[in-house]
Amino acid sequence: MMAANLRNCAINTATLGFQCPIAQSIDAIAAAGFGGIAPWRREVEGQNVPAIAKRIREAGLKVTGYCRSTYLPSLTREGLQANIESNRRALEDAAILGAQSFVMVVGGLPAGSKDIAAARAQVAEGVGLLLEHGKRLGVRIALEPLHPVYTAERSCLTLLSEALDMCHHIEGSVSEPSLGVCVDVYHVWWDPNLARDIARAGREKRIAGFHVCDWLVPTNDVLNDRGMMGDGVIDIPSIRAQVEKAGYKGLIEVEIFSAQNWWKRPVIEILQVCAERLATSV
Amino acid sequence: MMAANLRNCAINTATLGFQCPIAQSIDAIAAAGFGGIAPWRREVEGQNVPAIAKRIREAGLKVTGYCRSTYLPSLTREGLQANIESNRRALEDAAILGAQSFVMVVGGLPAGSKDIAAARAQVAEGVGLLLEHGKRLGVRIALEPLHPVYTAERSCLTLLSEALDMCHHIEGSVSEPSLGVCVDVYHVWWDPNLARDIARAGREKRIAGFHVCDWLVPTNDVLNDRGMMGDGVIDIPSIRAQVEKAGYKGLIEVEIFSAQNWWKRPVIEILQVCAERLATSV
Repeated sequence: MMAANLRNCAINTATLGFQCPIAQSIDAIAAAGFGGIAPWRREVEGQNVPAIAKRIREAGLKVTGYCRSTYLPSLTREGLQANIESNRRALEDAAILGAQSFVMVVGGLPAGSKDIAAARAQVAEGVGLLLEHGKRLGVRIALEPLHPVYTAERSCLTLLSEALDMCHHIEGSVSEPSLGVCVDVYHVWWDPNLARDIARAGREKRIAGFHVCDWLVPTNDVLNDRGMMGDGVIDIPSIRAQVEKAGYKGLIEVEIFSAQNWWKRPVIEILQVCAERLATSV
Repeated sequence: MMAANLRNCAINTATLGFQCPIAQSIDAIAAAGFGGIAPWRREVEGQNVPAIAKRIREAGLKVTGYCRSTYLPSLTREGLQANIESNRRALEDAAILGAQSFVMVVGGLPAGSKDIAAARAQVAEGVGLLLEHGKRLGVRIALEPLHPVYTAERSCLTLLSEALDMCHHIEGSVSEPSLGVCVDVYHVWWDPNLARDIARAGREKRIAGFHVCDWLVPTNDVLNDRGMMGDGVIDIPSIRAQVEKAGYKGLIEVEIFSAQNWWKRPVIEILQVCAERLATSV
């Protein structure tokens, strides 16, 4: 079996189920040979962020993405402003961490609303303001379109084409975009326009991240029953090939939400299986 | 409270949880004042189909759609042929029932396959053959794009635009199409291109059915935890207005899969609440 080049691969800490403090996750991920980490705000905020950044650097890890934004849409202007402000602070931590991008899951419908057009308008407004802040900090923003099953509760931004349209609407056509998209196979694999839109994302230099996991059949819980690469139905090598053909040269990030399976296993075992599957099934 | 014009509304029998034989469902739906019914093959096949058709007619009900196709994709040519053949027989029953359309849920990935392009090609081939059979029988075929959460197991056809593309690919541009689409709010409400694609479906005379239910927050089971109109987050009146503006003049069909809630209630209560909600929330 050929080994994967793990230096070109990153572990999103959610994959480890938040079983241990960030310091231990950093050390375990580096020890297993991976080249990058994507930490979550719940592990970072309220901690000594420069110290975490230093530990990550000294472990030889890149920070692919910092996860993730506060949802933007709100029933009130004050709520929207507060959500934007929360993301401003997170962007500052992303800068300290040296994150390649701040990952934005934009939010769904505010409780009590059925107005998805209004939610989308608030998202566009908020991302526009945050982009300016990110540029000053030197942090790229990566919009992550989520699978449409999450529209109501997590992301009114679903199609890759829609995310690219939003990037263009906000930033226009630029040679060095500060606004990009995360392509997560779980969210996009089903899309009949996937090949077209990955190619477009490449032409527009918008691919800011590439996440892998798998879609299990059956899926018992669409949020927390995602599969290890190879255990589901996604043709991951095909999507990877398209992303790389489109010019993506960044790390491949493993992000698996799996409350009933992987999160119950020891961190070292999870990392070992990720490494194996990156070689065989990605 | 204004009453809905129930003569312009139909009940998909799945909404009643298959609690009683089709004959009783027919009588209950007609007695409640509805103008149409959409029966399922499980209630019809192996029965005296002409007798069921007669009972429906004598109850004064139209048959909006006959539910539904055998999934088409298969790992083998023989499997595909068998699936097409099964649908041919169902089309014949649809003709006897006088159904306005035969509803096709096209199927997802065959077990063991990750090749969604192959599945889509088989669907196009199968629908093409069935369309010819349907024309001879005088039964329109209605492709129902499903929510992308069902891609793996139920429908590799997800976007309304994709269904319209398939219609055009198979039938071309004709003045009286025999191939159309079902617009079910549950499957399409999240789509950022929904308004564009409903308008297109109208221009191309493809809207062969309009189904309503609601998306609950939270949704405990994406298959069988659908909501009664008004209990979820879908702006149903907006989608209805778009469908009618696009020229749809057919019945509004209520189709609710709700194993833990509505299916546990008496048929007469389900029908009464459907009638109320058609007036207030559709």
